[in-house]
Amino acid sequence: MAGLTGFEKGAVLVVLVIAILGIAYAFILRAQILSQDKGTARMQEVWGFIKDGANAYLSRQFRTIMILIGILTFVLAASVLIIPPTQEATEVFGSGATAWVAVGRAIAFLMGSLFSYAVGFVGMNVAVEGNVRVAAAARKGYNPALQVAYRSGTVTGMLTVGLGLLGGTLIFMVFGIAAPDALLGFGFGGSLIALFMRVGGGIYTKAADVGADLVGKVEAGIPEDDPRNAAVIADLVGDNVGDCAGMAADVFESFEVTIVSALILGLVLGDVARGALGDGQYDMRFVIFPLILRGIGVIASVIGNTIVRTDERTRNAMRAMNNGFYLAAVISVIGFAVVTLFYMIDPNTGAVDWRPFMATVAGILLAIVLDKVTEYFTSTHFSPVKETSRASLTGSATNILSGLALGFESSVWAVVVIAASILSSVLIYSGEPAATQFTAILYGVSLTGIGMLTLTGNTISMDSFGPISDNANGIGEMSGLDKNARNVMDDLDAVGNTTKAVTKGIAIGSAVIAAVALFGSFLTDTGKVQTQLGQTPLAGINVASPMVFIGLLIGGAVPLLFSSLTIRAVARAAAEIVNEVRRQFKIPGIMEGTKLPDYARAVSISTTAAQKELVSLGLIAVLVPVIVGFLLGVEALGGFLAGIILSGQLMAVFQSNAGGAWDNAKKYIEEGNYGGKHSEPHKAAVVGDTVGDPLKDTAGPALNPMIKVINLVSLIIAPIIVSIRVPGQGIGIGTIISMLVCIAALAWAIWQSKREAPGMSGS
Amino acid sequence: MAGLTGFEKGAVLVVLVIAILGIAYAFILRAQILSQDKGTARMQEVWGFIKDGANAYLSRQFRTIMILIGILTFVLAASVLIIPPTQEATEVFGSGATAWVAVGRAIAFLMGSLFSYAVGFVGMNVAVEGNVRVAAAARKGYNPALQVAYRSGTVTGMLTVGLGLLGGTLIFMVFGIAAPDALLGFGFGGSLIALFMRVGGGIYTKAADVGADLVGKVEAGIPEDDPRNAAVIADLVGDNVGDCAGMAADVFESFEVTIVSALILGLVLGDVARGALGDGQYDMRFVIFPLILRGIGVIASVIGNTIVRTDERTRNAMRAMNNGFYLAAVISVIGFAVVTLFYMIDPNTGAVDWRPFMATVAGILLAIVLDKVTEYFTSTHFSPVKETSRASLTGSATNILSGLALGFESSVWAVVVIAASILSSVLIYSGEPAATQFTAILYGVSLTGIGMLTLTGNTISMDSFGPISDNANGIGEMSGLDKNARNVMDDLDAVGNTTKAVTKGIAIGSAVIAAVALFGSFLTDTGKVQTQLGQTPLAGINVASPMVFIGLLIGGAVPLLFSSLTIRAVARAAAEIVNEVRRQFKIPGIMEGTKLPDYARAVSISTTAAQKELVSLGLIAVLVPVIVGFLLGVEALGGFLAGIILSGQLMAVFQSNAGGAWDNAKKYIEEGNYGGKHSEPHKAAVVGDTVGDPLKDTAGPALNPMIKVINLVSLIIAPIIVSIRVPGQGIGIGTIISMLVCIAALAWAIWQSKREAPGMSGS
Repeated sequence: MAGLTGFEKGAVLVVLVIAILGIAYAFILRAQILSQDKGTARMQEVWGFIKDGANAYLSRQFRTIMILIGILTFVLAASVLIIPPTQEATEVFGSGATAWVAVGRAIAFLMGSLFSYAVGFVGMNVAVEGNVRVAAAARKGYNPALQVAYRSGTVTGMLTVGLGLLGGTLIFMVFGIAAPDALLGFGFGGSLIALFMRVGGGIYTKAADVGADLVGKVEAGIPEDDPRNAAVIADLVGDNVGDCAGMAADVFESFEVTIVSALILGLVLGDVARGALGDGQYDMRFVIFPLILRGIGVIASVIGNTIVRTDERTRNAMRAMNNGFYLAAVISVIGFAVVTLFYMIDPNTGAVDWRPFMATVAGILLAIVLDKVTEYFTSTHFSPVKETSRASLTGSATNILSGLALGFESSVWAVVVIAASILSSVLIYSGEPAATQFTAILYGVSLTGIGMLTLTGNTISMDSFGPISDNANGIGEMSGLDKNARNVMDDLDAVGNTTKAVTKGIAIGSAVIAAVALFGSFLTDTGKVQTQLGQTPLAGINVASPMVFIGLLIGGAVPLLFSSLTIRAVARAAAEIVNEVRRQFKIPGIMEGTKLPDYARAVSISTTAAQKELVSLGLIAVLVPVIVGFLLGVEALGGFLAGIILSGQLMAVFQSNAGGAWDNAKKYIEEGNYGGKHSEPHKAAVVGDTVGDPLKDTAGPALNPMIKVINLVSLIIAPIIVSIRVPGQGIGIGTIISMLVCIAALAWAIWQSKREAPGMSGS
Repeated sequence: MAGLTGFEKGAVLVVLVIAILGIAYAFILRAQILSQDKGTARMQEVWGFIKDGANAYLSRQFRTIMILIGILTFVLAASVLIIPPTQEATEVFGSGATAWVAVGRAIAFLMGSLFSYAVGFVGMNVAVEGNVRVAAAARKGYNPALQVAYRSGTVTGMLTVGLGLLGGTLIFMVFGIAAPDALLGFGFGGSLIALFMRVGGGIYTKAADVGADLVGKVEAGIPEDDPRNAAVIADLVGDNVGDCAGMAADVFESFEVTIVSALILGLVLGDVARGALGDGQYDMRFVIFPLILRGIGVIASVIGNTIVRTDERTRNAMRAMNNGFYLAAVISVIGFAVVTLFYMIDPNTGAVDWRPFMATVAGILLAIVLDKVTEYFTSTHFSPVKETSRASLTGSATNILSGLALGFESSVWAVVVIAASILSSVLIYSGEPAATQFTAILYGVSLTGIGMLTLTGNTISMDSFGPISDNANGIGEMSGLDKNARNVMDDLDAVGNTTKAVTKGIAIGSAVIAAVALFGSFLTDTGKVQTQLGQTPLAGINVASPMVFIGLLIGGAVPLLFSSLTIRAVARAAAEIVNEVRRQFKIPGIMEGTKLPDYARAVSISTTAAQKELVSLGLIAVLVPVIVGFLLGVEALGGFLAGIILSGQLMAVFQSNAGGAWDNAKKYIEEGNYGGKHSEPHKAAVVGDTVGDPLKDTAGPALNPMIKVINLVSLIIAPIIVSIRVPGQGIGIGTIISMLVCIAALAWAIWQSKREAPGMSGS
């Protein structure tokens, strides 16, 4: 930690302690939850099935991806050897720089992967533990159930922020100004695991859901969560692996990548400032500030979370959680202002620099506005969803068209809001001198990302709450809990639907903001390496150049390819579930309820199906940037990134919001409008809901981590590309062979993901 | 025509004569068709309704857009006065340059609009005249019917190429090296009218189609084209105004804009070469070459079209048309090679420059490959559509999901093909010196566009053939024609479905290719004006700059906004039709068939509804680039264009192909697979087909002209932006007021397009 003032050293240590305390707080909460009552024997039996299924999934997944993680760790370490060490690495580690960076990046990658996995694993585990205890607490009253559900979510929330902050701070402490080299590995590890968790969880949950519904509700006419349906446990497990584990890993990764981009850009600014300061020292304010912001956010979330409670008369879970959220927001903003006032002093003028504070607050505002946009387009209280409900009167075709139109439009406004928040950074830093303006604006954008995710502790608590209540409800149904308790859980479940939609909006928004900031560092980073190699550094990514435009076109196509393949994967897995449930229905005793179906088989089918798709989709995300970068060059790779961010954002919001709207259009009809449940419009709306399921829970959310995996792979390979593809020199035979191998692997992965659904036609 | 060699002057005159002969040929064909038999009195009665409806629509549309065209003509002329005349204009016209350019651009704009309108109008008119005569000829046999149908289409085809070539050549003859100033106006006029025709026609045809089907087929259970349905004539009129007039204007505009971009870029290359030649003269080869290519294409199309015939034994319309197409292709390629060999000689080296030839042939290949991609994803003979049919076994939700996945994927491959064809220009011109490489590559891209549309004469003949046979079939049904004749028309109709899909692929592909070429000239043009104004010229459009990225994001969102609004517009208009048909069904005598319904009312409702939407959608296309350009600056406007092209291409292909696949998945079931007509899977597939209708016939195709309107508006306003928004100077009050007016108008237009469908809920 050379170059830091005494205050700064102290601040970093305090942040580290806060991170550890956050993790400790998570484990204390977990212990509290585990000590709660687990209800009747029947409840525990049902819960046992869910628990086994969920654990089986995650440990199976771990085995599947371990090999890929192992290979990548090795490749990452080896790749560092190709390129010369950065000036910063040499400054910190001297002649051993290359070895330090190679090992450091590999370890950081492993750390990122493990942390991301841990957040998913523990988050899911505590959700499963929470489910049955929420059901048990619901027998006592509304507030006890709310408390158990919310606190179970808080465990994941605090673990996310604790581990995210711990990783970033540790890397900074060890690597100092050379931290970007390792941070890239950290971010990549986290994003890759998040991609696996999102894709795997998303396929699992929707395959089980769609499969269970198609045979149970539609063909056999039995209710949802009916114990005779062999896929019902798989469906409940799916909520945990998709909505808890997948979501937690995804948000963890956004939390982590925003800090990665802020540290990278903060160091660039500090490097520029050291020239201006003239003392040969980095100006560390821009790096320490985001760490402190994160620390304040963690404290604010803990305080905010403790006040979440309601009473048996009010029974307003939403207000209770919002109170916690707003309290945390106010504490954060005050904390940010105080730190700015005393710490962010310009050493040349002695004046307080309020600009980073403003960019951070813009992020908090962005989170709130995106939340409102999502709510407007997906909530039953506003005209878009009502219009989609009304379109169901003329059948499912008009319902689908209305949802598509609404999804397209919501994506437009989300983009406008994000564009406005980038614009705010441009305006905030408009007075900055030309030499640093570009970096300063991007630093502002990364702080906006930090701001958006300040209250991640609260957001995840609120989000996890949804699937936990949902599962508790399922356990209640299957174990025949009394009406009062079920009403409590129904109500909590409905609130959970809203909080889930909100988190999705924030996850996508922060993904784009983080990607824009990373994208900016792509140019800076590549230019640095080129200068070191004696090449003319890239001045910009000129999208009017035909080669860059080709990159842009291909980049824009990737999110559509990904969406297409994930939708097909769900269809394929759902077909297998359908066949299995049909088979079991034919076994004597099952439909009569005298014999329990083989839940484990459906669980195992979903698990296997989800795993099958993982590797090929992960390979696509890793290989495409490598191929584009080496074949078309580093500037075209920049165009490719721009294309991916643009089309990824559009597709993610479109799919999430159209899906959310169809879901709620159905709910609005179920509330008694346009004929109510079992009417023709309701049937039409059910079609829309089923179409929306894989869009909103698999294809859409998978795009967030995908955008960042590709971004980070590009950042990591860019220096290698400029070392190997030297202008004017031919391409070596090694590169050609590697490219052919990559292309073959990509072709295999796409072909693998395109297999048709098996045998559902044989019905 | 100063600066041309004697051969070149002769060549231009020959091209002009070919253009005029092409137009003359169209009118001779038209006279031939008019001389054919119109069949029975009942046939002529039905046809009379269609004819009146179609003419009413187009003349109404003309009145609606005339005001907007008038205002824009004035604005275009006035806008020229703000900026200094280009160096080329001064060279050609001396001190009167500004006045010449102002008047020239305005006249060219009017000419572009009128030509585009004329192509649409005459194309539709001859299609309507052809309909009844095809029905009459079908009583005589297969070949007579094919001949009448194909030749009716050829009228439009020849008019398209004739007028497109005439306009470009005339402008070049008058303006010489200052032609780009006027060509922009010509392209803008054509694109704007094409946008109106596509949007208006698309809304009209799908509103009538969906409205007629929802009440007729679904509610009342009567067959398609049943004379008791009040919307049946509107539906038939719709085929003409959408598939004939809309499509013709759209392809005309692509044909025109590819020549505009080739001439603009050819002049830039010629300007660069004049330095190299050292004689102070433009090198005109690059401008004359595309004109000659077009001329050869026209001749080849005429020859190809004449051999389209079959006999009563073979009855293979597809092969007959393909023979004509391939003959024309072979003639063109040979002609191109001959011209290259004798004309494209590098004056410095004396060697033949084969590169323009290669880029042009790449375009012909691109057209063929795109055609195959479209066919693979939308034809019943390949696995994608079969998979969507099979997905209907588990209901409409799985059918829709399968179509979405297929549409997304097809868009990916279309983008890859287009990227590959741009790459081919990059490779072809890789040996070009750095100073001209950028322009040369873009010139290659524009020649690829020229190549793609070489056989427009054949393509349009084949495309128009579809709706003409469809309408003939409708007339046959309504006037009770005998089974034999109806079989003939059924068969021609099915062939028409394939040719229509092919044209759509080419239209979208050429739109993107033309847009990429125009986008390149955006940078060159803006830089020129900036140099003239003494500013630092734009070196590139750096998408890593936050402001440009904001432009990219907003640009990417526009096609989604457009699609959302057009889908809603169809829903709104269809609701009005539904209400009207329901009202008429209640009138005594109509369901019994003793009284004719009031067809004219449904026609008038469709017409009015389509007009209502036109102006607001047109305003959005014109205003958004103006607002983005003036508020965010000219470089951000470049990012905006890149975003629009990328997302426009992705959305257009996705919507067209998903729609085509759903349509054919239904047809595949109707052919007797998976239960055949009236089975549950068929019902599920009908839902998919209805969802696909507005996507493939309204929202998707409207994006082609939209991309180009926005491109051309941007090219026109870029010089004005750099004149007004001088760096370091504040923005004047006039600009601020104009911007506020534009934003208010845009808000009005969006709000106007978002109105909810009226009263369909009251059913």
